[in-house]
Amino acid sequence: MSEPSSENPIEPASQILLRATPLTAQSFAAFGDVIEIEGRDFRWINDNTCKRYDDLAHVDVLENGGRPLISVFEAAARPLPLRVRALERHPLSSQAFFPLQARPFLIVVAADGPAPIAARIRVYLSSGSQGVNYRRNTWHHSLIALGRRSSFLVIDRGGADDNCEQIAVDAPVVLVTAE
Amino acid sequence: MSEPSSENPIEPASQILLRATPLTAQSFAAFGDVIEIEGRDFRWINDNTCKRYDDLAHVDVLENGGRPLISVFEAAARPLPLRVRALERHPLSSQAFFPLQARPFLIVVAADGPAPIAARIRVYLSSGSQGVNYRRNTWHHSLIALGRRSSFLVIDRGGADDNCEQIAVDAPVVLVTAE
Repeated sequence: MSEPSSENPIEPASQILLRATPLTAQSFAAFGDVIEIEGRDFRWINDNTCKRYDDLAHVDVLENGGRPLISVFEAAARPLPLRVRALERHPLSSQAFFPLQARPFLIVVAADGPAPIAARIRVYLSSGSQGVNYRRNTWHHSLIALGRRSSFLVIDRGGADDNCEQIAVDAPVVLVTAE
Repeated sequence: MSEPSSENPIEPASQILLRATPLTAQSFAAFGDVIEIEGRDFRWINDNTCKRYDDLAHVDVLENGGRPLISVFEAAARPLPLRVRALERHPLSSQAFFPLQARPFLIVVAADGPAPIAARIRVYLSSGSQGVNYRRNTWHHSLIALGRRSSFLVIDRGGADDNCEQIAVDAPVVLVTAE
């Protein structure tokens, strides 16, 4: 009779428990852009009635005849703890999300590389006045709104090609709390 | 001694007094797109946790090697009544604005044509969950936030060319009230 294995990768005791860290341009740089005005340069426009914080994200949507889309996503709130089961990525484009009710939301990403991807998952909390722009090919979770159904302005790519890959997360990863 | 002219175009009595009308896709169609989800089709994505309202604006920013920009404008609140003194337009691109604190704002536009442009000015009130995308060459006023300083996500064009024309409004036009 064998002993119960302590190395079973799907054993509850081996769950990876994650908490979010605050979203900053520096900590998120490997995954894309943080769209925010805090600490950024601006120029005055419109007779000095308006500050323009210019060009806050690298919009990369033109590959293979792609075109920029502006869409709205309305996402259900997700209760925590949340099991992270799958990630997706867009091989032909960036994808930007900005919250429209100034509510915090969670951003789950992972660097590409050898298995297990679960070990490379990172979680960030947007303040609600921060958006993100996933760089092309950045693994990311679908929208995780908190507390209430929330809408987001989305800038991504229109085109006929298949522009979405998915990957199953290869070990149990649970987002425990937002903060 | 001449009589006081009743036809003096800058005499206060000849002011054009405007009130805003609600922003609707139909009423705004000559000027661009209303970016909104009310009454629009969507498709379920992300395991039916999210509605995607797809492709809500015609993003027209690629002329002469232009590229899409995502920026944030932070606009001072404008007190009413407001004298409309000038309009601007972008001959090479569309320009989209979406409010980030869900606050109503005013949209002032005019169809192109012979003088006086003042007679063609129209004013719309966004509900705060509506953005606008000015079509290329649509005359429009700079941002008119109401009540408080407000920020907007802006999708327009990056490129070296001069992409802004201005016109002085050729008769006194005053926005009286937002509603």
